[in-house]
Amino acid sequence: MTNAPESECDVLIIGAGPAGLMAARWMAEFVRQKPDLRIRIIDKRSTKIFTGQADGLQCRTLETFQTLGLAEKILAEANEMVTISLYNPDENGVLKRTDRIPDTLPDISRYHQVVLHQGRIERHFLDSIAERSDMQIKVERGVLPEELTVDDSKIEDSEAYPITVKVRHLSEEEATPAQFGHKAANGLFRSSLTTAEEEDAAFARQPGRGENETETIRAKYVIGCDGGHSWVRRTLGIEMVGEQTDYIWGVVDGVPHSNFPDIRSRCAIHSANSGSVMIIPRENGMVRLYVQLQERAQPGQRVDKARFTSEMVIASAKKIMEPYTLDVPEVDWFTAYHIGQRVANAFDRDNRVFIAGDACHTHSPKAGQGMNTSMMDTYNLCWKLGLVISGKADRSLLKTYASERRPFAQALIDFDHKFSRLFSGRPAKDMADEMGVSMDVFKDAFIKGNKFASGTAINYDPSIIVGKEGAITSKRDLAKNIEVGTRLASHKVVRHAEGLPIHLGDLLVSNGKFRILLFAGKASDPQQMQRIGAFADYLDSDKSVISRYTPQGGKRDDVVEVLTIHSNTREEVEMHDFPAPSLFPKYDYNKIYADCEPYHGGHAHAYQNYGIDEQKGAVIVVRPDGYIAMVCDLEDTPMLDAYFDGFMLAPAKTIGRQTEADWTIKGTKSNGVNGTGVHVQKEPAAPVV
Amino acid sequence: MTNAPESECDVLIIGAGPAGLMAARWMAEFVRQKPDLRIRIIDKRSTKIFTGQADGLQCRTLETFQTLGLAEKILAEANEMVTISLYNPDENGVLKRTDRIPDTLPDISRYHQVVLHQGRIERHFLDSIAERSDMQIKVERGVLPEELTVDDSKIEDSEAYPITVKVRHLSEEEATPAQFGHKAANGLFRSSLTTAEEEDAAFARQPGRGENETETIRAKYVIGCDGGHSWVRRTLGIEMVGEQTDYIWGVVDGVPHSNFPDIRSRCAIHSANSGSVMIIPRENGMVRLYVQLQERAQPGQRVDKARFTSEMVIASAKKIMEPYTLDVPEVDWFTAYHIGQRVANAFDRDNRVFIAGDACHTHSPKAGQGMNTSMMDTYNLCWKLGLVISGKADRSLLKTYASERRPFAQALIDFDHKFSRLFSGRPAKDMADEMGVSMDVFKDAFIKGNKFASGTAINYDPSIIVGKEGAITSKRDLAKNIEVGTRLASHKVVRHAEGLPIHLGDLLVSNGKFRILLFAGKASDPQQMQRIGAFADYLDSDKSVISRYTPQGGKRDDVVEVLTIHSNTREEVEMHDFPAPSLFPKYDYNKIYADCEPYHGGHAHAYQNYGIDEQKGAVIVVRPDGYIAMVCDLEDTPMLDAYFDGFMLAPAKTIGRQTEADWTIKGTKSNGVNGTGVHVQKEPAAPVV
Repeated sequence: MTNAPESECDVLIIGAGPAGLMAARWMAEFVRQKPDLRIRIIDKRSTKIFTGQADGLQCRTLETFQTLGLAEKILAEANEMVTISLYNPDENGVLKRTDRIPDTLPDISRYHQVVLHQGRIERHFLDSIAERSDMQIKVERGVLPEELTVDDSKIEDSEAYPITVKVRHLSEEEATPAQFGHKAANGLFRSSLTTAEEEDAAFARQPGRGENETETIRAKYVIGCDGGHSWVRRTLGIEMVGEQTDYIWGVVDGVPHSNFPDIRSRCAIHSANSGSVMIIPRENGMVRLYVQLQERAQPGQRVDKARFTSEMVIASAKKIMEPYTLDVPEVDWFTAYHIGQRVANAFDRDNRVFIAGDACHTHSPKAGQGMNTSMMDTYNLCWKLGLVISGKADRSLLKTYASERRPFAQALIDFDHKFSRLFSGRPAKDMADEMGVSMDVFKDAFIKGNKFASGTAINYDPSIIVGKEGAITSKRDLAKNIEVGTRLASHKVVRHAEGLPIHLGDLLVSNGKFRILLFAGKASDPQQMQRIGAFADYLDSDKSVISRYTPQGGKRDDVVEVLTIHSNTREEVEMHDFPAPSLFPKYDYNKIYADCEPYHGGHAHAYQNYGIDEQKGAVIVVRPDGYIAMVCDLEDTPMLDAYFDGFMLAPAKTIGRQTEADWTIKGTKSNGVNGTGVHVQKEPAAPVV
Repeated sequence: MTNAPESECDVLIIGAGPAGLMAARWMAEFVRQKPDLRIRIIDKRSTKIFTGQADGLQCRTLETFQTLGLAEKILAEANEMVTISLYNPDENGVLKRTDRIPDTLPDISRYHQVVLHQGRIERHFLDSIAERSDMQIKVERGVLPEELTVDDSKIEDSEAYPITVKVRHLSEEEATPAQFGHKAANGLFRSSLTTAEEEDAAFARQPGRGENETETIRAKYVIGCDGGHSWVRRTLGIEMVGEQTDYIWGVVDGVPHSNFPDIRSRCAIHSANSGSVMIIPRENGMVRLYVQLQERAQPGQRVDKARFTSEMVIASAKKIMEPYTLDVPEVDWFTAYHIGQRVANAFDRDNRVFIAGDACHTHSPKAGQGMNTSMMDTYNLCWKLGLVISGKADRSLLKTYASERRPFAQALIDFDHKFSRLFSGRPAKDMADEMGVSMDVFKDAFIKGNKFASGTAINYDPSIIVGKEGAITSKRDLAKNIEVGTRLASHKVVRHAEGLPIHLGDLLVSNGKFRILLFAGKASDPQQMQRIGAFADYLDSDKSVISRYTPQGGKRDDVVEVLTIHSNTREEVEMHDFPAPSLFPKYDYNKIYADCEPYHGGHAHAYQNYGIDEQKGAVIVVRPDGYIAMVCDLEDTPMLDAYFDGFMLAPAKTIGRQTEADWTIKGTKSNGVNGTGVHVQKEPAAPVV
């Protein structure tokens, strides 16, 4: 028990589900850079998830995991979903496979969507948080928040701790409430069938207990990642806005015995009159069945969750999947939920207390959006928060959390509203059957939905960090195939030093850095090399965003990292032709890349894919979360200044201009195979030894 | 100290380097299947390797690691080598890059060669051995063998323990001999510059010590993996045959400071008059330099290893690499060696005691063959040994170890003989310079050598397990692009159950099973389905190799696993069209694959790549080590019988004929999208519920 009566912290994260763990994982990077930051994460429950709950991981989530060093481990355990089979009644009402479509749209991402039990994902996050924070951030379990107040007078004071949270340390018993009397592991106690009041009651203070176990935490920032019944949200008085359907669905996990031909494939099954099933094939031979139940809910009325059993869910599935056989001899987990779509009317209180994940949007689980969107909420929030509490960025940056994530949550709710009604509707018998759902309309929605659900389609509106208008209106023509405000799709480039093809996405590690991607164009052309040289001169000067925003004592790539991608072969130009040390720092072989044909795997055509001119190149600024901040020309350094000046804070002492002399030796030029002899030489060449 | 005065074990492995660990890893699979097997592995040294030693991993080694579940972890840490740059003197004698070639030949394997420090590789092996053997096999360190005798009268008795090995348990101090006074970590004490006598002396019994710490081990089999000075080899009186050059090379590991343009790329550098250097870029920014030293050895005379220092190696490299700069401020490890090529005149004693790895072949390290070949020796030996000690195969199988690996070792020695002389020779000044080495000849040898060095070119001679002649003469025309006796190259196939592309190599897990790959051809054609049905009938009958060689109580795929790969799309035939349960066992979705276009990644054309007719198919038998045993037609079940009868032993009680009735339901046929309605129905269809 960390039972100090009163303590301070920079960020208090409430809730250690996917949203909370992603928040903690991001904060670990900032703690690594500034070990005096104090980050805490608490959860009222005594244990993490062991079975059931969410499982789908979408493309964008996997791309993000890769930048956090988590993708390989998670993919090694996950089950990849590649095909969706659609089953519908034929003219005699007999179930029939009518179509197959790809699950992940081809070429949308280098990753395909997969499923893995939430508990395993949380395990990998916990390991990664411990490692990256050097054990400084650990989830404190059995800690229940009871009171939250914000001192309005201190909100704009960056040194203050305006938030006071009183928490109670629970006993093991209190932190492990009974799961409503079911023997099989289930999620009913967390589902939409449980009320906030029931959840509160499960953790309520027992008479004569808990008086001595309270603690007062004063925090600069609080993030409420505390689920659909979010105590933080209710305490802040934020409302959930939206509506409910009358559909009730059940979920069951297990290894089915079935002769259904696509039992290991994702399926959407609409029976003639018995409802719908979605099949999700999972890791270790397990299958998840989402099953529409015959029970209906009356809008506004509560449904008695105790009525729902795994047997009931399986029985419904059997009926829907006739004439195929189905049995689930051992149920790993089950739940039931009432479909509704709601979104919070605010995502923060004065940019001091934030809510994220299920706390601000709830919807049906079938598109696998819950866990993904929750993690992406805090992935969006926490690099901003990290820069602010590290003193690198202004508090105004924080308002882009709500301005970016709330419209997305609304779009998600709208998508789910449409999608879940199509899924729960009875198939139309024919064209005239207007009460039924047209299976062509459903298929179309499924395909379109897949793009949305992949998470790759997000396009953030213009803001201080999305350069689409005003002083930072990106030059769209310089990179025709990408959109400012979307995530930068990854293509392979070839590391100049040895010719290894590397995904650009692998270079965009989540560590809080902005990146300037210098698409240098044809560096073998002397005129183009002059432009590159001028850009390097800017970077080296005391006026550059690097010189002005990097604190003294750090490395020049600590805040803004420059990566150069040229369009020559590795023989047309040499690494040493590039201006050193700004583009080619001393003995650093990881900054210069070529868009050329490697020996293995084929040309990835990055310039072409991004729509960048191979001669003239372009500059792309990428945010710490991988979203495209702005696109400009090599000469547009004032735009770079304007962009960073919009929210960055200059440190008291900056690193200043580049003072290290050019270290490369130019005298050996004639030794290259096809060396152009073109380079920007800023210092006399060192003598050749 | 496991100091039983006398004990028995099935296999005693002497030496825990790469060859010994691979042996133990294989044996772990057999211990997993038969927990009463007793396997021990001892090493006289107190610790595993922490720096230096071998580092290159060739394609075939990585393919093998994948079948052992080791590839992912090792590749995540390794550095991939993609380019070889050749540097030679120009007409003025100045070093110049003259060529670049791919390091791994394109399309030779799905893996490319990589480098990773031997200590990390050993670490992953140790973890994997512990996990797979359920902690039953652990390396016993500080255990020195002192006496080995074989009781000739018991050699052919499969119940006997004909070998007696006396070992001494060393103190920590005795097991950690001083490394000849060098401060920097080095490999001189293990290099070819150290004599067997010096090595023996380092571990010699001290007066008044060790009398009580001896143990007598009686073993069925012994594998000597105890290095170039192999005590096992010397004890057996086996001779090393070959010759030595007068060249001496040094090796140094560190992070170099250099302006050499290809310092992060593999390079072969021939200077005009100062000798040669090979650069190997390694993990974590480290680089290994192989450096030809000016010192020469007189054949037959010993070289004083104490003379060699890292400074001397670096100084030689600097001179060779002029005019580029080079410094290695911190040396991680260094060594020196005297180039020679020798191979043992026998690889075993009566197929009871075997030697493997450096114990039976020594050569120069530059082609990265040592560690790879050593591991491949025991990878070849130990599935055979595992089947024999498990009672599944006849002892005659063991003679194929020497008959397969000794000719390969001889070829390796011949390759290295040529390659190392080309590397150490002075570049020819012009056509007339007959004493010099032509750089075109060198380049050509490098490219050809790469194929050999990849390990994928091995083609074992005909034998009881390589069906190339007599009763098991493979029908080569049925799979035109593959060679019996070579490893089966991996191509992707699509898992029928859900459409996921999977490398065939991933299915060939190293667990001691033989595989029958049934390339079923166009299963949508009724005539072809008849042939498939007849083959399935054979498998189910009491005459099949499965029925006769699988012990009662086991699963039908325990000894011989059948995998079906058809050439239809996943819509032209259904999984349930295939004969169940022989080809499609109950609820097992991992046995049937399609050579078709998946949604992502493109058609892999497995039939085309193997040269198999897409209509008629073929049967390929693959050995437990991934080598192609035989190729035949679907009707050639007598050939299957003849092959397995050649070395397998029938268990006392066999699993016998397939008795489980066909479990699939055929009545729903009309529900498929494009179902052919063709299938072999052996039992009346169960009623559709």
